[in-house]
Amino acid sequence: MAESDSKLKLLGTWASPYAIRVKIALKIKSLEYEYYEEKFSEGKSELLLKSNPVHKKIPVLIHGEKPICESLIIVQYIDETWSSCGHSILPSDPYERATARFWAAYLDEKWFPALKGIGMAQGEEARKAAMAPVEEGLVLLEEAFGKCSKGKPFFGGDQIGFLDIAFGSTLGWLKAVEKMNEIEIFSEAKTPALLKWADNFCSDAAVKDIMPETEKLVEFGKIIAAKMKAAAAAPPPK
Amino acid sequence: MAESDSKLKLLGTWASPYAIRVKIALKIKSLEYEYYEEKFSEGKSELLLKSNPVHKKIPVLIHGEKPICESLIIVQYIDETWSSCGHSILPSDPYERATARFWAAYLDEKWFPALKGIGMAQGEEARKAAMAPVEEGLVLLEEAFGKCSKGKPFFGGDQIGFLDIAFGSTLGWLKAVEKMNEIEIFSEAKTPALLKWADNFCSDAAVKDIMPETEKLVEFGKIIAAKMKAAAAAPPPK
Repeated sequence: MAESDSKLKLLGTWASPYAIRVKIALKIKSLEYEYYEEKFSEGKSELLLKSNPVHKKIPVLIHGEKPICESLIIVQYIDETWSSCGHSILPSDPYERATARFWAAYLDEKWFPALKGIGMAQGEEARKAAMAPVEEGLVLLEEAFGKCSKGKPFFGGDQIGFLDIAFGSTLGWLKAVEKMNEIEIFSEAKTPALLKWADNFCSDAAVKDIMPETEKLVEFGKIIAAKMKAAAAAPPPK
Repeated sequence: MAESDSKLKLLGTWASPYAIRVKIALKIKSLEYEYYEEKFSEGKSELLLKSNPVHKKIPVLIHGEKPICESLIIVQYIDETWSSCGHSILPSDPYERATARFWAAYLDEKWFPALKGIGMAQGEEARKAAMAPVEEGLVLLEEAFGKCSKGKPFFGGDQIGFLDIAFGSTLGWLKAVEKMNEIEIFSEAKTPALLKWADNFCSDAAVKDIMPETEKLVEFGKIIAAKMKAAAAAPPPK
């Protein structure tokens, strides 16, 4: 049996943008897989702890007996292992590939943590302060979209690529944060290109059945926020 | 002129492990380049601010007119652009590639910050506490070496590969931290494989003229430590 035919298992949680990245990549390559939903209310599964002993985090893709961890590394692994299935996820040009990797790293290191900051901000003043780095980032990302897409619908050109997956995976949460905080993150006035891109991305065949519903994320977001509030109000342990 | 023949410029600082990564990759591929040493005492150069406006950090490789930022992304770019020069830096097998990327990310996100923590610790107790995550990481890395190298001298096998560069780039600072704090980080008792690997790495033709002298790093480390101490002792701004 060829390596690329071995059975695939994916460990994820339904609301995780990082797991969504892997699901989209698997869909682009038309790969079948067994999906294991981690239920953190029940503690981390044995399979997760065994497969990712270093970080103990989803997503993990298990290919045959081999676990692969970290969402962007998994997406690259899928693209490289099934290079002849579906379309290429990484650009073929090394400079475009470096650019896509650069912005994907920027999103994970800077922009997503800033977006999470809005969700965690308590009060109007704190929320305004939390919005600032998100908006600064959007100026850069709107400009990056122009350069990468070259007038086409996606960062990757005519089809969803690496940076589309890296950024687009978070659009469900972005909409949920907008709704929960009654704010506009993407707008016609400030991010017209990203607004259109988000529509294209979410309605794409590789994405539309995977992206969680905004309402469901809002409900989940409220539960997380309530837990955080309770934890902040609790007396410190003696 | 072919893309791969365009002129190369590297922006770095002599003591930066991240710049060292790029220098080693360029050496493996036998590529000529103009080197620009950033002197932070003079403020960041115009060329740096223009080439990496997002992070404003070295290293930056400028290929023709195109800037590439972030050390591990640059190393991959070099390997992909000059794939026929020297030996391959990334493993050819997608799973081995994913494994090398996983450990390289682990080093940058977890282990190097922990190593820096030793340098910044004030007093015996703080230093002991700072050693704990470094030692935990070494257990993982010693084991990873066994799996990746398969009995050969490097993580990459017979030749220096991606993970060797990612990890090895910091060996100068590791030795400086050992010397400045009178501690042993790599040891025959706990990390026999990594100890031997470090010797192989530092004496390799692609590395030996690039790695800064430990004494010079110790001197530089003392200046940084003194500045940090002075900053911590200064009254807060009014």
